[in-house]
Amino acid sequence: MQAEIISIGDELLIGQVVNTNASWMAEQLNMAGIRVGCILAISDQKEQILETVKIASKRSDIILVTGGLGPTKDDITKKTLCEFYNSKLVFNKDVFEDVKSIFGKRGFVVSEVNKMQAEVPDNCKPIRNKNGTAPGMWFEQGNTILVSMPGVPFEMKAMMEGFIVPELTKRFRLPALINKTVLTHGIGESTLAAIIEDWENGLPGNIKLAYLPQPGIVRLRLSGKGNEKDILQKQIGDEVLKLHQIIPDLIFGYDKDTMEEVVGNMLRSRKMTLATAESCTGGYISHLVTSVPGSSDYFEGSVVSYSNPVKEKALEVKPESLEEFGAVSEQVIIEMAEGVQQKLNTDYAIATSGIAGPSGGTEDKPIGTTWIAIATPNGVIAKKFHFGEHRGRNIRRAALAALNMLRKELL
Amino acid sequence: MQAEIISIGDELLIGQVVNTNASWMAEQLNMAGIRVGCILAISDQKEQILETVKIASKRSDIILVTGGLGPTKDDITKKTLCEFYNSKLVFNKDVFEDVKSIFGKRGFVVSEVNKMQAEVPDNCKPIRNKNGTAPGMWFEQGNTILVSMPGVPFEMKAMMEGFIVPELTKRFRLPALINKTVLTHGIGESTLAAIIEDWENGLPGNIKLAYLPQPGIVRLRLSGKGNEKDILQKQIGDEVLKLHQIIPDLIFGYDKDTMEEVVGNMLRSRKMTLATAESCTGGYISHLVTSVPGSSDYFEGSVVSYSNPVKEKALEVKPESLEEFGAVSEQVIIEMAEGVQQKLNTDYAIATSGIAGPSGGTEDKPIGTTWIAIATPNGVIAKKFHFGEHRGRNIRRAALAALNMLRKELL
Repeated sequence: MQAEIISIGDELLIGQVVNTNASWMAEQLNMAGIRVGCILAISDQKEQILETVKIASKRSDIILVTGGLGPTKDDITKKTLCEFYNSKLVFNKDVFEDVKSIFGKRGFVVSEVNKMQAEVPDNCKPIRNKNGTAPGMWFEQGNTILVSMPGVPFEMKAMMEGFIVPELTKRFRLPALINKTVLTHGIGESTLAAIIEDWENGLPGNIKLAYLPQPGIVRLRLSGKGNEKDILQKQIGDEVLKLHQIIPDLIFGYDKDTMEEVVGNMLRSRKMTLATAESCTGGYISHLVTSVPGSSDYFEGSVVSYSNPVKEKALEVKPESLEEFGAVSEQVIIEMAEGVQQKLNTDYAIATSGIAGPSGGTEDKPIGTTWIAIATPNGVIAKKFHFGEHRGRNIRRAALAALNMLRKELL
Repeated sequence: MQAEIISIGDELLIGQVVNTNASWMAEQLNMAGIRVGCILAISDQKEQILETVKIASKRSDIILVTGGLGPTKDDITKKTLCEFYNSKLVFNKDVFEDVKSIFGKRGFVVSEVNKMQAEVPDNCKPIRNKNGTAPGMWFEQGNTILVSMPGVPFEMKAMMEGFIVPELTKRFRLPALINKTVLTHGIGESTLAAIIEDWENGLPGNIKLAYLPQPGIVRLRLSGKGNEKDILQKQIGDEVLKLHQIIPDLIFGYDKDTMEEVVGNMLRSRKMTLATAESCTGGYISHLVTSVPGSSDYFEGSVVSYSNPVKEKALEVKPESLEEFGAVSEQVIIEMAEGVQQKLNTDYAIATSGIAGPSGGTEDKPIGTTWIAIATPNGVIAKKFHFGEHRGRNIRRAALAALNMLRKELL
């Protein structure tokens, strides 16, 4: 069984709107065990809609369409579907009640244009819309179900969750489908692939593996298909366990975890506090940490010491250390970490100092050279890294590496 | 002439990744005068890739493909395109030099798997990739151009901007097309539309206007089409000038300017320095400022005072002020701004304190309540804002509002 998503709207094709609707729908279908074979974004043009729906009907069992249901001239989806199914528009009393109720809530009078929104093709089952004036439409022809929904995200989501997904799950006795994503840090995709090659080759035939790289992070997604959800769950769990035994140090989380959440949860559960002293990362680590709701439970604050005078004044880095070793050095990074730990009176502290680029590199310390230190209740550790040439990514990679060093200390 | 975008990757079909690549590419093509007829997201499966490329070749002149070019087993785009064109993979020395250079910079040794990334189909023109190990590939057959790129956004973007869009523009002798984007801050889309209505209605027929809203910012994009680039340039320039006369205070920049760059350039040219004291923004303003290359010219650093003790210790906010007025108050925000200005010895300082959410709101100070202060050489100004309910957007909007307040002080 295969589903297909068709998003209608010129705004998608000129890049004005990112198609977040389709991703959300794909995730919902996937979690319900329905494979999405294809996502399309097309124009508000009759011929293209007809052609696309025709092709989709041949290859997919379920077609979910969004967009083009508004009351204005460029919204032609309803009329076009009517033409596709060779049906005709009929006035629907229930739908009209919904339209009137929406207008009533907003204090508007129902115009003739809006009354037309209560007309639906005579071969569809209308889906009530509690959040807007355009009803959804459920069509069946041959073995294909086509559902048309408004493009307004919260209207679409309410229909999906309230009616469409439950209905599809009932209708098709769905095979179990489980995804599990393992998050790794600190190793490139190809090196990782070499390390876990045997494990990958030994995966059962019903489990697929995908590598999803991001700067500093590689996500490994396992997708399993089977008849019994429990068995599948155990099968995937076993494979993740095996993987964990091969690369225990590299795994920092699962599924939608972020490094800053993982570290934050560890700090909270250990009742420990954190501060940061940031030079090259310029406050980005502090931003990541505080982007997590509730981070005030464990995060005290940060000193972003972008200039040397601030390193001396606010963190009590010794002028001699800066003079002799430079700001990007083991000596200075240790003093920064200890300085902020003492000043802000925390259990742990992170410090970063590096050459983010694009200028400032030397032969000894090329762009990307970064020192990171973690101050713990039992002393300081420091490590030198070499990231790349690109400023934004150096900042991101340094922040992740620093948080990951802290994570390992907290283990 | 029509273009089509094909994004390859299971992660798109299970909703794990939102297809921002396609939107970005669609926008670039659109701005170059190339219509995008269709955007597809499909699976990493040979049959589907072959079928999709076959259909696309029949209806589109330009096909841009992303994804599936990594070194691992699930990356099958290159092999599949080879099969589609009935060509064979050959080792390419130039591409191999790029691969080696990337690995050299990162201090890694090139593995056999990575050496294979230097193999390209013999009927394509490889496109160099300075940011990664997978080259792009430019194919031509009949009247159709197909370009395959990596799915990693910054690798794809560099290829698009550096080679593909300029090459397509040359090849298809496109009509002159000029885009100019005017960046406004601090006003909603509909209010702005009402203010500039007359100007908008008076725009010449060959100039189109688009409103592109983001949290805190509305971008106004003027797109002009014509035969002579010089005339068009002048025409657009005149309209922008008229617009500037209507809303001089709301415009903070043009095109790809960012608020942090605009403010940074103003500080640099005035030889003035900046520090920040951040509570609710948690280091995000500091991060924005330091994301600009060369920001060490004017940025001294930041004290992220997430907890009250840090506000007292590091910024010398009076305990009585915190006690009497609370951390989110005019009194405290002024003390924070003055504190960091003095401590870090700068000309200007920004301070923020607010309730980012999702918890912490009260009847008096609901979520989104934010105080911002700017310390200048001539005293401090402070202002209260009400942002929304959403933590991430509150942080972003507070940072932009703070930088914009500083910008106005610097004018």
